[in-house]
Amino acid sequence: MGKTIAEKIFERHLRDEPFAGTFVLDLDCVLCHEITTPVAIADLEWRGKDRVFDKTKIKAVIDHVTPSKDSKTALQAKMLRDWARRHDLQDFFDVGRNGVCHALFPEKGYIRPGYTVIMGDSHTCTHGAFGAFAAGVGTTDLEVGILKGVCAFRKPATIRVNLNGSLPAGVYAKDVILFVIGQLGVNGATDRVIEFGGPIVDAMSMEARMTLCNMAIEAGGTCGICMPDAVTLDYLWPFIAADYADRAAALADFTRWHSDADAVYDRVLDFDLSALEPQVTYGYKPDCVKPVAELAGTPVDQVYVGTCTNGRIEDLRVAAALLKGRRIADSVRAIVSPATPKIFSDALSEGLIQIFMDAGFCVTNPTCGACLGMSNGVLAEGEVCASTSNRNFNGRMGKGGMVHLMSPATAAATAITGRITDARSL
Amino acid sequence: MGKTIAEKIFERHLRDEPFAGTFVLDLDCVLCHEITTPVAIADLEWRGKDRVFDKTKIKAVIDHVTPSKDSKTALQAKMLRDWARRHDLQDFFDVGRNGVCHALFPEKGYIRPGYTVIMGDSHTCTHGAFGAFAAGVGTTDLEVGILKGVCAFRKPATIRVNLNGSLPAGVYAKDVILFVIGQLGVNGATDRVIEFGGPIVDAMSMEARMTLCNMAIEAGGTCGICMPDAVTLDYLWPFIAADYADRAAALADFTRWHSDADAVYDRVLDFDLSALEPQVTYGYKPDCVKPVAELAGTPVDQVYVGTCTNGRIEDLRVAAALLKGRRIADSVRAIVSPATPKIFSDALSEGLIQIFMDAGFCVTNPTCGACLGMSNGVLAEGEVCASTSNRNFNGRMGKGGMVHLMSPATAAATAITGRITDARSL
Repeated sequence: MGKTIAEKIFERHLRDEPFAGTFVLDLDCVLCHEITTPVAIADLEWRGKDRVFDKTKIKAVIDHVTPSKDSKTALQAKMLRDWARRHDLQDFFDVGRNGVCHALFPEKGYIRPGYTVIMGDSHTCTHGAFGAFAAGVGTTDLEVGILKGVCAFRKPATIRVNLNGSLPAGVYAKDVILFVIGQLGVNGATDRVIEFGGPIVDAMSMEARMTLCNMAIEAGGTCGICMPDAVTLDYLWPFIAADYADRAAALADFTRWHSDADAVYDRVLDFDLSALEPQVTYGYKPDCVKPVAELAGTPVDQVYVGTCTNGRIEDLRVAAALLKGRRIADSVRAIVSPATPKIFSDALSEGLIQIFMDAGFCVTNPTCGACLGMSNGVLAEGEVCASTSNRNFNGRMGKGGMVHLMSPATAAATAITGRITDARSL
Repeated sequence: MGKTIAEKIFERHLRDEPFAGTFVLDLDCVLCHEITTPVAIADLEWRGKDRVFDKTKIKAVIDHVTPSKDSKTALQAKMLRDWARRHDLQDFFDVGRNGVCHALFPEKGYIRPGYTVIMGDSHTCTHGAFGAFAAGVGTTDLEVGILKGVCAFRKPATIRVNLNGSLPAGVYAKDVILFVIGQLGVNGATDRVIEFGGPIVDAMSMEARMTLCNMAIEAGGTCGICMPDAVTLDYLWPFIAADYADRAAALADFTRWHSDADAVYDRVLDFDLSALEPQVTYGYKPDCVKPVAELAGTPVDQVYVGTCTNGRIEDLRVAAALLKGRRIADSVRAIVSPATPKIFSDALSEGLIQIFMDAGFCVTNPTCGACLGMSNGVLAEGEVCASTSNRNFNGRMGKGGMVHLMSPATAAATAITGRITDARSL
């Protein structure tokens, strides 16, 4: 019987199976940020177990509120910083070197096909784009991961999602994943891995695949996952070239992390997306999804471009291409947060930062900021935001605020008109 | 008997003198930001007096916490925004168009020689650099200003500070004003106007003069003030050219706002600054000032370049010149907040933003942010910050934090070594 990629990763990392269906896996990466990790650090200290299993496999970043906005967040940052220093973590990213974790860590080449990755953050599923098993965990699991380098998971039942056809111009990975979540529902993939495949995925950049996997959790999925291929190789080559005789050898090696043709899936969904429209959410759940046409004209107060979903260079390019030579509407304010210093720097040298500023955008430093209502763009009561982020929960970007999730293209078009707008109509 | 510039401005704007020595002046500008103005707005609404005296003379900006960091600051921003819209204020600067008030409003040409200016902000004295009388006021005065366009002041006794000699290389306006405050003491100019003159002021750019006047309040001064001259004219010419036959006519007109040779001063202080060293504060009062040599080697956790004191393009140029080709120390984090979108944009096209980023700085959007511990760089308990801002009060940048005030040059040098450093030693 064939195996899925998730099953293969589990098999390769199995340390123990204390109960039937509960797998204790060795971890390749334990990722940390300053909101959830200090809770784990404090507890480990209290237990007299202030140790780390491997200082080369734990990566830490201050990203949620940066630079710190108040004494509480300054303390959280300091706790992470002090911990990283006292354990001599090789990869700690302080203010100025820091960016959104799920954009920064892949960019640094830390995530590889076949890896097991955990983090105290729900969008850890993003890293499955590299053919890794990556899952958000709670504080206890994070503590065990930091201390022992292991984490326990249930058997990884997988939903296979085949994305067939080819995407129309002006329709992006964000539209795809919003559509898929709309189909699956917010609990449709609970305790499941969502494996994305098909010609549309094959044609996607790593950035687009990260957008896809990033929102697996919004359908309840433990992890989103794509097969590693030549696109993955191109992205990772600067980091792995020394490990292989040549690219062909690396690509052959990657096939270890491909689901078998006769793998058994929990469900298989086939979507032909050749006629997909840009998608937008309404309401307070990510599966409340409609084609943009049905919400077109809805006035918004704020536009936000950024986050681990859509703050990458491709996203900024798409938005900037629409904004070039245009101004945002007087009735809106607009914010762009490039997800990492490298993305900021690339956007700067490509002239994108200037385009955003000329259009009237506020360009922030890299940060998670506005997405979860913690800084840099919190909504007031009754305000509406067009956002490229991943969650539209009630109050997510500020108490009493409404969030419409959309692609960077739709967000940029919306900034220009001040109302939800199909970018293809501009 | 001759008159000071402040006396001339008072005479020209006198509406009433209800009591001896209390002058009710007509106002040319009422400046507003989102922290203090919403309190005034709410009270005016409550009194049924939600009106503005002149929609062309009231200028408003969201600058202290931007983009909003939480529901409270989002509400403050919304109150200012809604008020600006309902009264059709001509000059309101929302997120993305906004910058630090005392940098933004001069840059827009709003402040002119002979003007009276109030704002609910202690560093309103900055605008005296243009030969204006500009003072920070409380909520009641601000309300009256908004509603009636007047404000009551006491008789403006003036301290004349003559800055003689010429500044050594590597010594800046910030060093001058720190030295002067050290000499005057934090109450040395209470209820006084500080009039700056002498060859060092004559040689200063408008940016440097704003740095000088910005900190008058730190010696207790109601306003810092400089005589308008050819430097002032160069800065303002794009905004006032239509008002004059030619530059000579404008310059002649400016002399209306020069103190008379026989003006009577409360005190006259003469300083020869030809041998001035870079200055740094210690302790929790801005008059705790020492030459940098005496604090050299003090370790810092954070370096902050920005604010209404030193977030202008000249400041960024000085810092970037030192940072070019260098990295900040691993032990520090560093933040730069260009004070306005224009400054950010100019810094971008001059390559300064890239230099800051390459050096490891976090580049934020324009904001007051870290200076007053409200966002974008709040210190944790026990942390030390080298800052180009204007206040080192206990807890100013975060409870339990220590702030050392210094010039952008000293701050940049300190970022490079991680310890308070004389930039001339690099």
